[in-house]
Amino acid sequence: MLDKIKDECGVFGIFDKDGHDIALLTYFALYAIQHRGQESAGIAVSNGNDIVYHKEMGLVPEVFTEESLKALKIGSIAIGHVRHSVKGKNFPQNTQPLVTKYKKGNMAFAHNGTLINAHIIREELEEKGAIFQTTTDSEVMANIIARSSDEGLEKALKIMLNSIKGSYALVIMTQDNLIGIRDPHGIRPLVLGKLKNSYVLASETCAFDAIGAEYIRDVRPGEIIIISKEGLKSIQTPVPLQSSFCIFEFVYFARTDSIVDGISVYEARRDAGRILARENPVDADIVVGVPDSGTTAALGYAEESGIPYREGLIKNRYVGRTFIKPTQAIREQSVRIKLNALSRLVRGKRIVLVDDSIVRGTTSKAIVELLRLAGAKEIHMRISSPPIKYPCFFGVDTPDRDELIGASSTVEEICEEIGADTLSYLSIDGLLRTVESSGCSFCLGCFNREYPMECEGRC
Amino acid sequence: MLDKIKDECGVFGIFDKDGHDIALLTYFALYAIQHRGQESAGIAVSNGNDIVYHKEMGLVPEVFTEESLKALKIGSIAIGHVRHSVKGKNFPQNTQPLVTKYKKGNMAFAHNGTLINAHIIREELEEKGAIFQTTTDSEVMANIIARSSDEGLEKALKIMLNSIKGSYALVIMTQDNLIGIRDPHGIRPLVLGKLKNSYVLASETCAFDAIGAEYIRDVRPGEIIIISKEGLKSIQTPVPLQSSFCIFEFVYFARTDSIVDGISVYEARRDAGRILARENPVDADIVVGVPDSGTTAALGYAEESGIPYREGLIKNRYVGRTFIKPTQAIREQSVRIKLNALSRLVRGKRIVLVDDSIVRGTTSKAIVELLRLAGAKEIHMRISSPPIKYPCFFGVDTPDRDELIGASSTVEEICEEIGADTLSYLSIDGLLRTVESSGCSFCLGCFNREYPMECEGRC
Amino acid sequence: MLDKIKDECGVFGIFDKDGHDIALLTYFALYAIQHRGQESAGIAVSNGNDIVYHKEMGLVPEVFTEESLKALKIGSIAIGHVRHSVKGKNFPQNTQPLVTKYKKGNMAFAHNGTLINAHIIREELEEKGAIFQTTTDSEVMANIIARSSDEGLEKALKIMLNSIKGSYALVIMTQDNLIGIRDPHGIRPLVLGKLKNSYVLASETCAFDAIGAEYIRDVRPGEIIIISKEGLKSIQTPVPLQSSFCIFEFVYFARTDSIVDGISVYEARRDAGRILARENPVDADIVVGVPDSGTTAALGYAEESGIPYREGLIKNRYVGRTFIKPTQAIREQSVRIKLNALSRLVRGKRIVLVDDSIVRGTTSKAIVELLRLAGAKEIHMRISSPPIKYPCFFGVDTPDRDELIGASSTVEEICEEIGADTLSYLSIDGLLRTVESSGCSFCLGCFNREYPMECEGRC
Amino acid sequence: MLDKIKDECGVFGIFDKDGHDIALLTYFALYAIQHRGQESAGIAVSNGNDIVYHKEMGLVPEVFTEESLKALKIGSIAIGHVRHSVKGKNFPQNTQPLVTKYKKGNMAFAHNGTLINAHIIREELEEKGAIFQTTTDSEVMANIIARSSDEGLEKALKIMLNSIKGSYALVIMTQDNLIGIRDPHGIRPLVLGKLKNSYVLASETCAFDAIGAEYIRDVRPGEIIIISKEGLKSIQTPVPLQSSFCIFEFVYFARTDSIVDGISVYEARRDAGRILARENPVDADIVVGVPDSGTTAALGYAEESGIPYREGLIKNRYVGRTFIKPTQAIREQSVRIKLNALSRLVRGKRIVLVDDSIVRGTTSKAIVELLRLAGAKEIHMRISSPPIKYPCFFGVDTPDRDELIGASSTVEEICEEIGADTLSYLSIDGLLRTVESSGCSFCLGCFNREYPMECEGRC
Repeated sequence: MLDKIKDECGVFGIFDKDGHDIALLTYFALYAIQHRGQESAGIAVSNGNDIVYHKEMGLVPEVFTEESLKALKIGSIAIGHVRHSVKGKNFPQNTQPLVTKYKKGNMAFAHNGTLINAHIIREELEEKGAIFQTTTDSEVMANIIARSSDEGLEKALKIMLNSIKGSYALVIMTQDNLIGIRDPHGIRPLVLGKLKNSYVLASETCAFDAIGAEYIRDVRPGEIIIISKEGLKSIQTPVPLQSSFCIFEFVYFARTDSIVDGISVYEARRDAGRILARENPVDADIVVGVPDSGTTAALGYAEESGIPYREGLIKNRYVGRTFIKPTQAIREQSVRIKLNALSRLVRGKRIVLVDDSIVRGTTSKAIVELLRLAGAKEIHMRISSPPIKYPCFFGVDTPDRDELIGASSTVEEICEEIGADTLSYLSIDGLLRTVESSGCSFCLGCFNREYPMECEGRC
Repeated sequence: MLDKIKDECGVFGIFDKDGHDIALLTYFALYAIQHRGQESAGIAVSNGNDIVYHKEMGLVPEVFTEESLKALKIGSIAIGHVRHSVKGKNFPQNTQPLVTKYKKGNMAFAHNGTLINAHIIREELEEKGAIFQTTTDSEVMANIIARSSDEGLEKALKIMLNSIKGSYALVIMTQDNLIGIRDPHGIRPLVLGKLKNSYVLASETCAFDAIGAEYIRDVRPGEIIIISKEGLKSIQTPVPLQSSFCIFEFVYFARTDSIVDGISVYEARRDAGRILARENPVDADIVVGVPDSGTTAALGYAEESGIPYREGLIKNRYVGRTFIKPTQAIREQSVRIKLNALSRLVRGKRIVLVDDSIVRGTTSKAIVELLRLAGAKEIHMRISSPPIKYPCFFGVDTPDRDELIGASSTVEEICEEIGADTLSYLSIDGLLRTVESSGCSFCLGCFNREYPMECEGRC
Repeated sequence: MLDKIKDECGVFGIFDKDGHDIALLTYFALYAIQHRGQESAGIAVSNGNDIVYHKEMGLVPEVFTEESLKALKIGSIAIGHVRHSVKGKNFPQNTQPLVTKYKKGNMAFAHNGTLINAHIIREELEEKGAIFQTTTDSEVMANIIARSSDEGLEKALKIMLNSIKGSYALVIMTQDNLIGIRDPHGIRPLVLGKLKNSYVLASETCAFDAIGAEYIRDVRPGEIIIISKEGLKSIQTPVPLQSSFCIFEFVYFARTDSIVDGISVYEARRDAGRILARENPVDADIVVGVPDSGTTAALGYAEESGIPYREGLIKNRYVGRTFIKPTQAIREQSVRIKLNALSRLVRGKRIVLVDDSIVRGTTSKAIVELLRLAGAKEIHMRISSPPIKYPCFFGVDTPDRDELIGASSTVEEICEEIGADTLSYLSIDGLLRTVESSGCSFCLGCFNREYPMECEGRC
Repeated sequence: MLDKIKDECGVFGIFDKDGHDIALLTYFALYAIQHRGQESAGIAVSNGNDIVYHKEMGLVPEVFTEESLKALKIGSIAIGHVRHSVKGKNFPQNTQPLVTKYKKGNMAFAHNGTLINAHIIREELEEKGAIFQTTTDSEVMANIIARSSDEGLEKALKIMLNSIKGSYALVIMTQDNLIGIRDPHGIRPLVLGKLKNSYVLASETCAFDAIGAEYIRDVRPGEIIIISKEGLKSIQTPVPLQSSFCIFEFVYFARTDSIVDGISVYEARRDAGRILARENPVDADIVVGVPDSGTTAALGYAEESGIPYREGLIKNRYVGRTFIKPTQAIREQSVRIKLNALSRLVRGKRIVLVDDSIVRGTTSKAIVELLRLAGAKEIHMRISSPPIKYPCFFGVDTPDRDELIGASSTVEEICEEIGADTLSYLSIDGLLRTVESSGCSFCLGCFNREYPMECEGRC
């Protein structure tokens, strides 16, 4: 309902050696990464021979019942997936994990990311007689592996990596193996953990926390991890000089309590607020964060500036996905149902209003109006990331360029459009400083159009 | 709920030239052939470029809503499918039509039948790198066509026919063509019709009646019919000397009001009753049919024998698929909920009880008991087909041999088991006489183990 | 979907002395009388102190799940209800049984019928301070009993009977008693039966057959039956000289396999067909019944006339209540989806088409058209009851008079409207002859406007 | 899922003079007070003659669809209700508003509170012949009004107030009037507002904010407000010397952004944190609040103590009501799914953990364990209200006394049970200081057993 760009998926995998109820653990883990995709969810489990799965459109608690989880209580390897699709690709057949049978047995795929050459490989595969039943990248990858499977699993995975270009954090399950792969640029996140003697893989560490697993490390860019009865094997494939981790994971996608590429998301966001305060100071009475995405940066801003933090906006915790279809009348009201301004705190006050980003500007405008009605004297909007000017082609659902207010308007114009007194964004340098301790390099494409690779003429 | 062997699918297709709402027409047609499969239903529509589809587990009126039918109102070719699966293969991914993208565009499959060499072709295709996402024969056929598509559509279809063995009535849709194919033995039915200027294909003529279409003729064994903007083209592929049409379509599967292979199902059933009366006369007061499957033969028996027909068994017309899960207590009660004996008619009477077949014997036993409780003096069971002794491998869901009462017991033993006073079956010759005007040959495998082809060691 | 007048309810009750699962038995019984009401269903069970219940909009198998039936497995008295409402009164709050708490404990009501003075009593009760939460007659009756409860149960029931006028077959449950009451004119049916040592009450005997109970006798007009641990007590209240049993129960409402007022519904319908044949003979080739309502009379017509009976119309047994909302396009098609003509049987034939009644004429017209398209040469419609000319005020849902084709048109006009070659109805005398062995008198109000009582100016 | 005591209801009403879509406004308002009751929701609308309503078990967005809201778009007065029931009274028939017909027309009730003499009045009413269909207090009140209605509406309301004892904030609708009533002790909240020319009533001001209405004032203890076409009329009934407003509204029930009895809930909670810091200081590194209920007090504690506030616990915003039924395994996991500790912030830290209250202690124990696992060095739990020692009889769902950890254990014992290093509660005096600016008196019964009235021997 709010005006955000959306991550496209979350993945999870477990190779059990302790007799856990792995369907239930996967359910808990998917619940923890539900924020990465709310359109569909699925779990596939291998018992060594067959792969059984359940996947449907809907939120994790809607898709799975006690009964469906019980039916999955059959094996020792499981993978799970939550999905958000790019506009218009929200088809039932695209739900994941994708489960296929091939020469060597069964195989299931859970993918977070976007291949930019999928259409080319598809055509090549079709040329060789392949048929496709979904529009997912997973189906493309499954075909490549199947065609190379005589070479052995490791070789087949390498052949696949050589073919595909784009972003991917992959969790693959064969009858006997759990596989984790991250693209050579390390664009999308994937972490490795352990629960007693059982290895786990997930998009974010918060999934590990949900099941009591321990975070070991991030899967490295270009790394293939194969977990089997024999243990864990890591294969490092060639990578570019610099990685290009998606910096927006720190800005908005990842959960505040996750550790991503060795960096605490919480700390990165708090630091963004601090640097924002240094870069864009303002004389004001209180700092207010837009819940939930702006809260942490607002706390950082308050700390750094010495201006007190106040809960000037209260969120209705019952607003969820189930909602009457927004007619125009309701759309206008929708921010008001989701958020309320705390008049006692904001009346007559000069407010620093902190949010993580502005996409179309509609929500920001509504919030500014809400605060004005509640009596705010001045509203100084501060955004804890740079203006989003360009679309993403690597696993993120950004609106068309003409809807991106940062693409067409100057900061002054945006300020006027949303009705704030002043508006400032964090600089790119400032943002990079929040994650510098990682030692990684980052993709900043949505801010500066510098993508990690040629995007086939689309960039 | 009742003890029957089940047909495995029904198919339908339309190539529209009149601006019909073809999604709605397909819905009506599927409704008419719902008896051929109650597990899932689906409709796919082509608009010349894309194929849009909706398919789900459930009955036709459960799967389709006004909204889902409206979303399919986009094109001029449509195919539809209702499915019953063999035991244990009742998976969501196996719903049809199977819609795939291949080298030449999009393609959708609706199949009634069973390929007996599908597993072999699967292995060959997997060997060449194919992946499979379902356990359907359609996916196998789609792969063959895709791999031969450079040869052109007609050649590719012929290549496919050369590869596959078994029973099939196929309705295939490409972006531009509607295709109907019947296996060389003509095992499963497929009829051709016309609605104004638009061609239609269906498993049975009752689908034509439901939409006001006219029956033209049966698709011939081994015939490929390709309907395009240019009109209808028929290709006759080689066929064996004798066809092997499934005679059980006349016994039970087809709707009484259908014309199949030029023969009225109604007449065949009535004649079966007549011949049964001649072959197995009995001195009795009334003839009672088991509704609905035994009614027509019972009327024939009554006519021939001169013994009056009476509605001694009444069916509860509200008993459907939605029913609380049958615990043992309920299972015993289930015949009683479905049927009731009309005591006034049966009390003190010597009854000829006519049904179309006996599978496990459980339902027959319960009905005999019901009639005894209602006061029947004698019960002479007459079955309008021969004893089912062997499984079917050609598109019919028969129970395991050890559950088939006809496989292990003599007629006398069955009579004792079900508690009837006497029991007789129609002879194979008698059954053949009911369909002799068709000029066809028939598969009698379930009665005499003479199958139309070698069944890979399974027979 | 078809053009029928509808009964308004079915009732059931059991006082258990054998340890039966009475919730399950009530479920089966309601299933058997589902034809009496398809809008809502409910079961209430008493454990001697509390009354627990479950009721909802929907068909019996939709309303009850294994879980909801299990929750009702608590006591030894149960009553059940299926409901059809008059137009526009289809409110959730009107579902039955109505469960209330009053001075002496708990009480539940299941009612079939209509009180014609309910509005007057309501006003009187409101005048005394009563509030109403439903628009049901049951709530009125519950209030009367509660207000008289100091007099003891028997007296209170008598006081209630003295107050109310109209039609009622009532099953009432207190914590300790199961009560059955039938109005003094005996308009609506109620039968008494026994299952081992447990008494049962139901609208029709087919409910007894469904649970294996034995029919004892009909509850008498004006009789109050009170079943308690001490056994069964019958109280006969004053009755008019003549009873006025609803003759339409025999024409259409009751199930063919029920015994009502000592008469077999089957026999009454068959006899109606026979007398119809004598009253309105015609030179024809075959007799065809409209399934399912016209079948029995058609068999009777065939027997009497010597013209052979043929299944010229086949019903799609999957057509149920769940159906896409009928747009105009579909409404026109709706008969065709429900019924099909068997061309082989009707082509070139002179047909006697038998149905039980004509309400608006729309269905008859569509069936005649269907048969003409199938090649019928002549269609002679014969109706096994007299023309419906007047509305019913006693528990039946009849359309407004201006929709009743029999109210405004002569038989000739109706014949023309529906497109038949000839049309005749059974005479009132003829109809009465079908039930004369009962020794009862009947209400013929819908045919001749002679109602059993003054209907407050509405007649 | 978490261990809280629960408010029992929320109410809303609007008398429209501006042509608003009042069903939609009521829907928005109920959404805003959803936290007051999650079991069922309902809206009733009067068009001057009839009252139409829709109510069901479920959350506001589950109960209402576009279609059901559209069906309510008929009039100019509406009331709404969200309900939480005391344990075991969660029956469908108890959903509100209760809609009744009585002598003077229609009437609908929405009630927040508990009558302590309802059972006595029920008995009196039953003695006079009344029947009851629910176990709600509303039904009792409706009966009293109906019986006094000849006296005129005002008098009838006064008679009702004279009869009932307990807590109540009532919104009543007749065909022509919207009525708001608050009990003489002012136990439960009710506020009055205006939207253009239309009056509104609600449990909390956040409902006004959601629809853009302006807060005028609180309805006074013992005040009857009658809104009609003629305008607003206030009647003050006698009240005790001191009011007894439920102080727990400030501790937990009310939304942070509401104004209740003239006091900002936010400020009261922040002040509670401040005073808690003064009363129970501790040497620590960070202050962490338990989201969402402890956050505001934690911020106050941090401000006052100078110890920095940190978001050490992160809430999964997708955890809602829909959840697989908690087996023991899941129950243990449930806090972990709902909350996660931010290790980076808590590792090695001495933590002040602030929550609003402790009920059974189970959640507190789980959170302490969570923080320990995340590396917390010391955990000093601070509760921003006094220990809950006694049940509430005035509209709050408290567990049985033997489950209330504060009833049986000393603070030291509780500290040990939950595993904290130290534990302190806010004093009663401290709590009273947070609301002293209201000039009201408060009910502290759950803390000190001093209830506003004799509770019929239950206290």
